[in-house]
Amino acid sequence: MNKDLEEVALQFRKLPGIGVKSARRLAYFMLERPQEEVDLFLDTIRHARSRVCYCSTCCNLATSDPCDICSDDRRDHSIICVVEQPQDVTAMEQSQEYHGLYHVLHGVLSPLDGIGPEQLKIKELLKRLEKNDVKEVIIATDPDTEGEATAYYLSRLIKPSGIKVTRIGRGIPAGGAVGYTDGITLAGAVENRKEI
Amino acid sequence: MNKDLEEVALQFRKLPGIGVKSARRLAYFMLERPQEEVDLFLDTIRHARSRVCYCSTCCNLATSDPCDICSDDRRDHSIICVVEQPQDVTAMEQSQEYHGLYHVLHGVLSPLDGIGPEQLKIKELLKRLEKNDVKEVIIATDPDTEGEATAYYLSRLIKPSGIKVTRIGRGIPAGGAVGYTDGITLAGAVENRKEI
Repeated sequence: MNKDLEEVALQFRKLPGIGVKSARRLAYFMLERPQEEVDLFLDTIRHARSRVCYCSTCCNLATSDPCDICSDDRRDHSIICVVEQPQDVTAMEQSQEYHGLYHVLHGVLSPLDGIGPEQLKIKELLKRLEKNDVKEVIIATDPDTEGEATAYYLSRLIKPSGIKVTRIGRGIPAGGAVGYTDGITLAGAVENRKEI
Repeated sequence: MNKDLEEVALQFRKLPGIGVKSARRLAYFMLERPQEEVDLFLDTIRHARSRVCYCSTCCNLATSDPCDICSDDRRDHSIICVVEQPQDVTAMEQSQEYHGLYHVLHGVLSPLDGIGPEQLKIKELLKRLEKNDVKEVIIATDPDTEGEATAYYLSRLIKPSGIKVTRIGRGIPAGGAVGYTDGITLAGAVENRKEI
């Protein structure tokens, strides 16, 4: 019994954000669940995983190549928003404010972790910029050290080609409090101020 | 793409302690993982789940009936420790201090949730007490309202048969701080004081 349980817990332990105790709790839960619910859980993951591929244009997770976004003619193909991860695309889409295309880097420059330009989908981005009539690249990497460095690196790489490179605005998040906001964010918010 | 992802996220959402954001994060992680790792994850759960049954004696999760503990002749069969859940057995075993048998109630009395004696494995416990030469029942339900009520209910039920009924000791947990301990725990700790 304990062997089976520990093996299941070990598998859950490999998931992000799941510690030793959570993993054991999930393992117990899974082993005590009705068989049909366990089957549904397993089959859903297996089915979804088998359908998933990467779009060879934007490098996002997709179920077709090119993906739904890249093949959508109603979207503005002259703007590319560069993000770190597939989930950033989902977040941007939820804003319903952006109607251009995307490019997923699958990471950020992080020399300490051995991640240089070669490990990211930068070649693929430059290839897209050569071929297409892209007018603007919006760099939407996270506003942390690695994200900023990556943004700077990309802008230096792209600017010589004459394409406009922009960075997403910094400011106070919705629901945030000025009194609890750090100085760098506030500096960005002042810089990004708008007439009302 | 999003449909597959949302379906996987929905499955993770059903697990205990996994919220909307964690579920989505786990879904992305799972869909971006190498196929062989996903297969290992799914196969481990499927295999373990297919082996699991309940011991008809102690009602614990098991892979054989009777389970390894109930069929172990080196253990003391005259003491039964009553716990709420299978994970409580694992915790007790880790203490390496208890060498008797167990009985898993699979819950506690909780009238507000519609859980009465019929929903717990109490009949099975009483049947064991009739047949075997059990000398002591240790009630190790949690020291919260439902756990205490269940302990009291069981003790009233068992005592008339002449079997000794005990409750696990209350006190300050290892690593705990007296200054941050609540009054009820401290009262229990004083009551359970030992000469040193």
